[in-house]
Amino acid sequence: MEKLSFQDYYAEWAGQCYGCGKYNEHGLHIKSYWDGDESVCRFCPKPYHTAMKGFVYGGLIASLIDCHSTGTAAAAAYRAQGRDMGSEPKLRYVTASLTVDYLKPTPIDAELEIRSRAEEIKGRKVIVVSELFAKGELCAKGRVVAVEAPKNMIPK
Amino acid sequence: MEKLSFQDYYAEWAGQCYGCGKYNEHGLHIKSYWDGDESVCRFCPKPYHTAMKGFVYGGLIASLIDCHSTGTAAAAAYRAQGRDMGSEPKLRYVTASLTVDYLKPTPIDAELEIRSRAEEIKGRKVIVVSELFAKGELCAKGRVVAVEAPKNMIPK
Repeated sequence: MEKLSFQDYYAEWAGQCYGCGKYNEHGLHIKSYWDGDESVCRFCPKPYHTAMKGFVYGGLIASLIDCHSTGTAAAAAYRAQGRDMGSEPKLRYVTASLTVDYLKPTPIDAELEIRSRAEEIKGRKVIVVSELFAKGELCAKGRVVAVEAPKNMIPK
Repeated sequence: MEKLSFQDYYAEWAGQCYGCGKYNEHGLHIKSYWDGDESVCRFCPKPYHTAMKGFVYGGLIASLIDCHSTGTAAAAAYRAQGRDMGSEPKLRYVTASLTVDYLKPTPIDAELEIRSRAEEIKGRKVIVVSELFAKGELCAKGRVVAVEAPKNMIPK
């Protein structure tokens, strides 16, 4: 049986995201998993996800770090509460603040790997820090302040 | 005659970006213009650019701020050098660091407007600060440290 990703546990209302929602047929379908205390996301850019020829467009890198981090925030919060992923009440985090430092041009002909950890879990907030690698090289770093989705984002 | 956007002045090698390249047929075709000392970008999200139902996905907001800011960086550098847009040598900036603060959920059924200014121009670096509005409300703020494209990103 295939292992479920963090995003597979999202409720339907929470799975509409262009970045990571499994119910968004146009989307990127970003998927995140635990690997010990780190979370990991792997993604192969399409040839048209270009910045300049041969390199990945920064908006895609920001999107990957964003969605992978909110997924990691939810997964880390379930763990911190001693609950199974997807148990009720279901958790869904959104981004309050995103920072990406682009350290070097990211080659497009590679599987990208993002490794992240929850640096802080406090109340409704989780801070997630990430490193993005391509061909074994660190190409970008991310920091996301994630918060539980506010009530006005949740469909009634 | 239609007014040219900042991105229309990019050389072909610089116009391949998924976010703002006019030569990328799959891309978002983000366009930026001067409005006095501010630059402005307007963009209508597609219905599938969702975060949760009714709201814009944060990765799109990051992408808009990213590409609009690198465009603004180039335009501001031409101005600072007293040169016409697109004059030789052509300028192209890329993002060294991107920060987006998501202040409130951004409605998807609206034209988004990003207004930006170059806060600092120094050597090969331009810092661009942005505000993103939807339906007249400030929904996000951005800060981009843009640098001239490094030689290893420019096709020979």
